[in-house]
Amino acid sequence: MSYNRRERPSVETYVEGILKGDRILLSRAITLIESELHDDNQLANQVIAKIMPHTGNSIRLGITGVPGVGKSTFIETFGNKVTENNKKLAVLAIDPSSKMSGGSILGDKTRMETLSRNKNAFIRPSSARSALGGVAHKSRESILLCEAAGFEFIVIETVGVGQSEIAVHEMVDFFLLLMLAGAGDELQGIKKGIMEMADGIAITKADNDNIKRADQAKREYQNALHLFPPRISGWIPKVLTCSALQDNGVVELIELIQHFEIQMKGNGHWLENRSNQNIAWMHDCIDNQLRRDFFHHNDIAPLMEDLTAKVREGNIPPPVAASQLINLYKQ
Amino acid sequence: MSYNRRERPSVETYVEGILKGDRILLSRAITLIESELHDDNQLANQVIAKIMPHTGNSIRLGITGVPGVGKSTFIETFGNKVTENNKKLAVLAIDPSSKMSGGSILGDKTRMETLSRNKNAFIRPSSARSALGGVAHKSRESILLCEAAGFEFIVIETVGVGQSEIAVHEMVDFFLLLMLAGAGDELQGIKKGIMEMADGIAITKADNDNIKRADQAKREYQNALHLFPPRISGWIPKVLTCSALQDNGVVELIELIQHFEIQMKGNGHWLENRSNQNIAWMHDCIDNQLRRDFFHHNDIAPLMEDLTAKVREGNIPPPVAASQLINLYKQ
Repeated sequence: MSYNRRERPSVETYVEGILKGDRILLSRAITLIESELHDDNQLANQVIAKIMPHTGNSIRLGITGVPGVGKSTFIETFGNKVTENNKKLAVLAIDPSSKMSGGSILGDKTRMETLSRNKNAFIRPSSARSALGGVAHKSRESILLCEAAGFEFIVIETVGVGQSEIAVHEMVDFFLLLMLAGAGDELQGIKKGIMEMADGIAITKADNDNIKRADQAKREYQNALHLFPPRISGWIPKVLTCSALQDNGVVELIELIQHFEIQMKGNGHWLENRSNQNIAWMHDCIDNQLRRDFFHHNDIAPLMEDLTAKVREGNIPPPVAASQLINLYKQ
Repeated sequence: MSYNRRERPSVETYVEGILKGDRILLSRAITLIESELHDDNQLANQVIAKIMPHTGNSIRLGITGVPGVGKSTFIETFGNKVTENNKKLAVLAIDPSSKMSGGSILGDKTRMETLSRNKNAFIRPSSARSALGGVAHKSRESILLCEAAGFEFIVIETVGVGQSEIAVHEMVDFFLLLMLAGAGDELQGIKKGIMEMADGIAITKADNDNIKRADQAKREYQNALHLFPPRISGWIPKVLTCSALQDNGVVELIELIQHFEIQMKGNGHWLENRSNQNIAWMHDCIDNQLRRDFFHHNDIAPLMEDLTAKVREGNIPPPVAASQLINLYKQ
């Protein structure tokens, strides 16, 4: 199919291109859904609605870990292994810190050099513009676009620094936490709540001098996981050691994820989880839209500025200021 | 001042009563702000606006810890000590689990027997009806009412089980975390994020056989706190041991809080923190009001039900369902 690059593709052009696996159109569609413009959003919604019947057929894998844990190297090794059997893999990023770092942590393709040259892999750098809510929202749609384009494995990557893990956890099937051996929980800055969300933990850099420590860490984390209450899904999270350097443990991890898929599809929790995620997504969209309409209202900004100053100085109670803004908005 | 108990007091009656320290009117005013009725909300806003100039003159203290840490006993000992010098203390509760437990954890005055008989203390059981957002919202207003009624120390109590700590942290000056010695972080279920918010940690039940373990825990937590980045306010969180049984450590804690107050008022962070909390509160109110107006719209419920089913079955993309609801709402 041919189209003029300068022109905006039509809904049909997007949809046909994506379904054929055209990466340029897939990239442009992701750019479209990331747009803040109202017209783009309308178009994006139409594209999403059309490709919807072709989505859902992937394993959605969330991967997190603090900087320094070897996330890029791990994803590269993992991705190259997954794609060996001609499976297609996409890597998407959620980077809440990108506003400050300019997106350098996740946006740089060169950090996954071999994977970015792999014809079965698609790496999408994160947009540095959007707020966390926005990024999360867009990532959910990006997953659908990648699924429609035939990707069977979708990795959503995030830096283990805060709220983003929760957002990622709410859009994936399997949530993987990468940990370093012997670094101590404190130093790794991993919150217990994040460990509690993990379906699997991989101790990275388990090679050479580090093997013994990695094995010990594996036992410790496995014990720590036992302290969490059992899950309704019946899944018992596992801990693995792996080495991207020595190509160890990655095959075992892929098998673990496949085992998870079989078990969860068997007991109905795979679809149940996705349904619940979709309902939560709808409510997120409603909240975002209500907030956006409010803040885009022409009269709100000047009154907001005035009332913010008054609230800051203690001259008006916050609920009263809020009511004044809401009343103006409703008129 | 006399008024008919059966009738709804006027704004003036509420305001005058509260400013005189009338506890019955204070209680009724808290009930009023906890009401879900629109008319009550309007009246509550007027009361809040009138008492606003008389607020702010308290130390707002957030206290959290898992069930079993001895929170009630601690608050009772602490409250009785604070009120010895004729200071007035109010205890408010945020209990996100109260929906399930029927409010029994925090709602029962009998668990603080001596404090509830203390004429300088006021204990307000939590409402079991409201959702977390609502409870948090109302607690902020309850703080203001108590301040207007002359309470100089306001304790906001919560169970250390999740989101409620964040809500409490956003409305207090000093956030105190209670911990047990030798129970292990895992067992206490305390998330690192909560430790990071603490301005002070008190190791409870530091008496008899437990003293040595409590001292060791104190050193460990103090070390753990060092791993967090320094605060902009310059405050270095402290760890104390205390025993309600042997009446140890509570005076030291009061001194610590006073030291905190002097330091923060000196460098401007006391007011800065409260201003930021008020701005955040205003935005919370706006979000809540937008959501409430949306869900109270007559036509939303039936369409929501229909679309929720469709989203669950994967027949419509969540953003498209959200748009349909928003479009109906805007008409």
